[in-house]
Amino acid sequence: MSAAQELIARVRLSLAIEPGDGAVSDSVSSVGAARTVEELLDGDERPELVARLRTVDPERVLAVADRQRVRFVTPADDEWPSQLDDLAHGQRVQGLGGVPVGLWVRGPMRLTDLSESVAVVGSRSATSYGFDVATDVAASAARAGRPVVSGAAFGIDQAGHRGALAAGGATVAVLACGADRAYPAAHRELIDHIAQRHAVVSEAPPGSAPTKVRFLSRNRLIAALSRGTVLVEAALRSGALNTAHWNDQLSRVLMGVPGPVTSATSQGVHEWIRKGSAALVTSGAEVLELVGGSGEHLMAVPRGPERAHDGFSLRQVRVLDAVPVARGASTESISSIAGVGVQEADRVLVELTEAGLVHLAVDGWRLVAGGGRGGGGR
Amino acid sequence: MSAAQELIARVRLSLAIEPGDGAVSDSVSSVGAARTVEELLDGDERPELVARLRTVDPERVLAVADRQRVRFVTPADDEWPSQLDDLAHGQRVQGLGGVPVGLWVRGPMRLTDLSESVAVVGSRSATSYGFDVATDVAASAARAGRPVVSGAAFGIDQAGHRGALAAGGATVAVLACGADRAYPAAHRELIDHIAQRHAVVSEAPPGSAPTKVRFLSRNRLIAALSRGTVLVEAALRSGALNTAHWNDQLSRVLMGVPGPVTSATSQGVHEWIRKGSAALVTSGAEVLELVGGSGEHLMAVPRGPERAHDGFSLRQVRVLDAVPVARGASTESISSIAGVGVQEADRVLVELTEAGLVHLAVDGWRLVAGGGRGGGGR
Repeated sequence: MSAAQELIARVRLSLAIEPGDGAVSDSVSSVGAARTVEELLDGDERPELVARLRTVDPERVLAVADRQRVRFVTPADDEWPSQLDDLAHGQRVQGLGGVPVGLWVRGPMRLTDLSESVAVVGSRSATSYGFDVATDVAASAARAGRPVVSGAAFGIDQAGHRGALAAGGATVAVLACGADRAYPAAHRELIDHIAQRHAVVSEAPPGSAPTKVRFLSRNRLIAALSRGTVLVEAALRSGALNTAHWNDQLSRVLMGVPGPVTSATSQGVHEWIRKGSAALVTSGAEVLELVGGSGEHLMAVPRGPERAHDGFSLRQVRVLDAVPVARGASTESISSIAGVGVQEADRVLVELTEAGLVHLAVDGWRLVAGGGRGGGGR
Repeated sequence: MSAAQELIARVRLSLAIEPGDGAVSDSVSSVGAARTVEELLDGDERPELVARLRTVDPERVLAVADRQRVRFVTPADDEWPSQLDDLAHGQRVQGLGGVPVGLWVRGPMRLTDLSESVAVVGSRSATSYGFDVATDVAASAARAGRPVVSGAAFGIDQAGHRGALAAGGATVAVLACGADRAYPAAHRELIDHIAQRHAVVSEAPPGSAPTKVRFLSRNRLIAALSRGTVLVEAALRSGALNTAHWNDQLSRVLMGVPGPVTSATSQGVHEWIRKGSAALVTSGAEVLELVGGSGEHLMAVPRGPERAHDGFSLRQVRVLDAVPVARGASTESISSIAGVGVQEADRVLVELTEAGLVHLAVDGWRLVAGGGRGGGGR
C-alpha cells in the first residue's frame, strides 16, 4: 500500500466515521487505513458506515480544506503529536476512544510543539473568580514556554486562551466542530486569532457541526495532547469532568483549583480532589511543578510574611512570648513564665524595648501595639 | 501515696509549671505527682520551678476555684477524657507536649462527653465566607450529637461555638488563660454562656493570663480532645496550623475546608491539603463521614444545591440558624446567638413564622418539623 493510498484511506475514514469510533481506530492501528476500508466494505456489520464510505469524496474535501488553509495530519507526518498514540490502548470513556485517524488543523503551529502543553478546562458558566484564576494559570504556563490547550467554550476555555495570548504564549483550541468553523459563534474572532497565530484542531472534518459525541471525543484529545489538565471550576455534572476521566485513563496529571465550598461551580473539582483523582493546585507555579520533569520548576515552600521577630534568639522569643497580651506584667512574672532568670529577663526586655516590641507601662511590661506580634499562637 | 496527696501534688504542679511542660508531665505519668514534686524539690536542675513549687498554695487555690465553680479534673476522676492519654507518647511540637497534670473546668458538662467531639479551628481574621462555613460545619456536628471543641478567639473559633449553640448542641471552649477568665474580653458573654451550659476548660490555673506558650499548649488539647479537627481558613503561618501539627502527631483526622485560591486566609489550608496532611471537606456531612466509625454517616454522593431558605436575607438565615433544633429558646437568647438586636430578632421571627419555618411553643421559639431546615446547605 502506498503512503498516498493510506492517506486517502484515512481521509475517507475521517469523513465517514464519527470522532472517537474506537473499533475503526483499533483496526487502523493494527492493519492500516486502506485495509480497514476494504474490510469494512467487504463486511456487512456496519451497513450505514459502508454507505458513507461509498459516498464521501476524500480528494475533493482535501482540495477544499487546502483552500481554507486546513491541513490533514496523520501519524505519517513529522508533526504528528506522538502522545496521541497513548490512546491506542483500548481505553473507552462513554464508549468512545482510540487514536484519531487524523487531525484537521488550521494554523501555523506544528502539533509536535504540544508535547509539553498544559490543558486548562472548566465550566462554561465560570464565575469571575474562576475566569481570573484560569487566566493566571494559563499565563504562567505560557510564560514558562508551555502551550495551553483547551476547547473554545465560554468561561474557563476562553480564559485559558486569553491568559496564554496575553502572556505572549501559544495556545491551541481543540474543537468539536470543523476546524474551519466557530462554535460558539461569539468566539469567531478568538478562534480565528488562534488559527492565525497558533493552531485550531479538530478530529471532525471541515464543515462538521458540533454534536455531543464530538464534544466527548474532543475531550479525550485535550487530555491526550497535554502533559496535564488543570480543572478550574466544574459543577458536579460538568462536561469538563469528562476530560478529567480521560486524564485518569491516560495517566496524565490531573489538577484541580479549589474554590468556595458554597460555589456550585467548584463542587465537581472538590469532588475529584476529595476522591484523590485530582491534585489540589492554587497557582501556575504549582501546576508547573506537577507537570514538569523531575527537578524542573521545583517551587519554594510558601512561607507567608516574615514576622518582625524572625531571626530573634530563642531566649528573646521566649521572653517576648511571656509578655501578656492584654495587660502589663512584672519582670519577675515574665521571667517565671519564660523560664529564664530575672536578670536575664530584664536584659532581654531592654533589648525588646529597643526593638520597639515591648514597653514599660505603669502596670508593667506590655506589648507595643502593632509591634510585630502578629499571628502568634492565636 | 494517698489519692488526696496525689491530687494536691497535681494541683501544686499545675500552679508551678507552664502548661505543656513535657518533662514534668512525663515524670507524673511514670512515677506519679507526689513523687515528681519530691524529686523536683530534692534536685537542683530547675531552681525557678522549685522556687514556685515552694510558694504556691494548692489548698487555697482549690478553695477559691470552688467558689468560682471551677473544678480540677485529673486522670483519677471518672470524667477524665481518656483520649488525652494519647499525649503520653513523647510527641513534642515546638518543645511542648505531655498529658496535662490536670484540667481546670468550669461548667456542667462532663469531659467524657467529648469522646466523639469535633474541633473547629481557624483564622481569627476569618472572612464572612469562612465564618459561615464554620458555623454550618459546627451546626452539622451538633445536630449529629457531636460536641464541638474550639478556642474562644474571634473568627472561626467563635463561629464554631455559635454554630453548635444555634443547633442546640454542646460546645466546649479550651482557653489559654484561666477558666475563670475571658480572653478576648469581647467574648466574655459567649464564654460565660458556654460555661453555664457546657464547659470551659484550661490547663492553666484560674487567674492565669493568656501567653503564647499557653496558646500553643492549649492547641494540643484541642487536637487531643477531639476525634478530628476541621480547619476553616488559616493563612500560611496561622496559629491554627499549630493545632494541625498536633493532629498529625496524634493521628487524629485532620480536615480542611478549601476556599478561593485568591484568599490569603485559605492558603494555609490549601497547603495542608496539597501536602496530603489534611482531607478536603466541603460540608458537615463530609466531616461526619470522616470522623465517624465505619459505616456511620456514609453520605450520598453530592448532587447539586437545593436550599429551602435560598433567597432569604442573611439576617433571616442567621436568626433561623439560631433557633435550636431540639428545644425552645427565648427571643433574647436567639438574638444573642444570631448577633442581632432583640427587636430585630423579634421582627424576623415573625417573618419566619409566616414562612412556616418557626413557631412559638410553650418553651419558646422552635423550628417547625420539616419546615425546610434539614436541606443540608451545600
